[in-house]
Amino acid sequence: MELKVIAFDADDTLWINETYFDETEKKFCGLMEDYLSHQGISKELFKVEIDNLKLYGYGIKGYILSMIEAAMTISNNTLPIEIIEKIIQYGKELLEKPIVLLEGVEETLDALHGKYKLVVATKGDLLDQRRKLHNSGLGHYFHHIEVMSDKQEIDYSDLIKRLEIQPSEFFMIGNSLKSDVLPVLAIGGHAVHIPFHTTWAHEKIDHKVEHENFSSFEKITEVLKKLEEKASFKPL
Amino acid sequence: MELKVIAFDADDTLWINETYFDETEKKFCGLMEDYLSHQGISKELFKVEIDNLKLYGYGIKGYILSMIEAAMTISNNTLPIEIIEKIIQYGKELLEKPIVLLEGVEETLDALHGKYKLVVATKGDLLDQRRKLHNSGLGHYFHHIEVMSDKQEIDYSDLIKRLEIQPSEFFMIGNSLKSDVLPVLAIGGHAVHIPFHTTWAHEKIDHKVEHENFSSFEKITEVLKKLEEKASFKPL
Repeated sequence: MELKVIAFDADDTLWINETYFDETEKKFCGLMEDYLSHQGISKELFKVEIDNLKLYGYGIKGYILSMIEAAMTISNNTLPIEIIEKIIQYGKELLEKPIVLLEGVEETLDALHGKYKLVVATKGDLLDQRRKLHNSGLGHYFHHIEVMSDKQEIDYSDLIKRLEIQPSEFFMIGNSLKSDVLPVLAIGGHAVHIPFHTTWAHEKIDHKVEHENFSSFEKITEVLKKLEEKASFKPL
Repeated sequence: MELKVIAFDADDTLWINETYFDETEKKFCGLMEDYLSHQGISKELFKVEIDNLKLYGYGIKGYILSMIEAAMTISNNTLPIEIIEKIIQYGKELLEKPIVLLEGVEETLDALHGKYKLVVATKGDLLDQRRKLHNSGLGHYFHHIEVMSDKQEIDYSDLIKRLEIQPSEFFMIGNSLKSDVLPVLAIGGHAVHIPFHTTWAHEKIDHKVEHENFSSFEKITEVLKKLEEKASFKPL
């Protein structure tokens, strides 16, 4: 089996994302600090987010709606309407944050482009992710973008079926062990973990990953060496 | 050239959708009727929706956010917070509406299944549309679902590139002349219009469509006859 498709997670793998959510959450806690401690507000927001995940999915619009709902709960419906206005404003600002590429991303894509079929495999909101890819200037490196409604084993199996390849021909690179690594290894693919300095609580796992198809690197450029190492990773 | 892919729009082509939005809008107008006439409220909501379209895209979450924003504008930020709570509740109910298939859909898919590659080509929210397809029980008829961020010529060109076919090998069926027919004809594909009894203002066009690659039918089952008619439409 040769490697046919290399898939890149987008948020916090290609560009900064969680940092912007953290900033927004800090501002949200500031808005609500008359009602509860910052820690208490974050806890309530996280609870609302997880409760809504099945209905809203991932992405900024669901996050805005969850902030509004958390604000109403935290204040017991006594908050001034201007706070809702502010939350919507912060949400719209979050949607328009500039794309800041992570170190080594462009170098890595440039080296792999033309040798493998490169795709973006991301969860989140379709429009957001397409816009971010467009604004990143990285679009030309990729065959296409796969926006996934979730990143569980079944979602990767569907993806691989759609790509018309075998799991062993699939190589995933991402910052989340839970979403980018474990399900890919479970279905027989290859995965590389590039940690980002901050991880959303929902993406955290509490055990070490060891697997013959798995590596973890500090820098995304180290993937290039990894790919040269194995004969079966040689481009077609 | 033979026909290779038949793409179906989803909302109001495979199943009822606009009816549910209309119901929700009616309830929203009811909530806000102390401030403005129903007509005035609808007008303001539509304005906010269109203003937000570039940022939020299509789908229910953006619609909920637009209702909240419109409610604040209409009431000049004087509305009781319970109205926001109601709007979110209506939005969540809209997300969970049952899927009601339109007449002839299952018969049509059953007849075409196995003869052509069938895909769903829909705009809207990725998670919503996947859930609806799953709940519709129609999933097994389709090779996959293409959730598009918009349905303009460029989006169809991208789709056709991704499907690795020529425009003349592509046949689109949908209820919107603006989104399902005109852009497909413009890039050289085939399109069939199956009108639904109600159309969102944003999807309306004010001229007649005439084109050799275009047909309009009352019932989706009439597509079957159309496909048998032309030698070049014969399945592979």
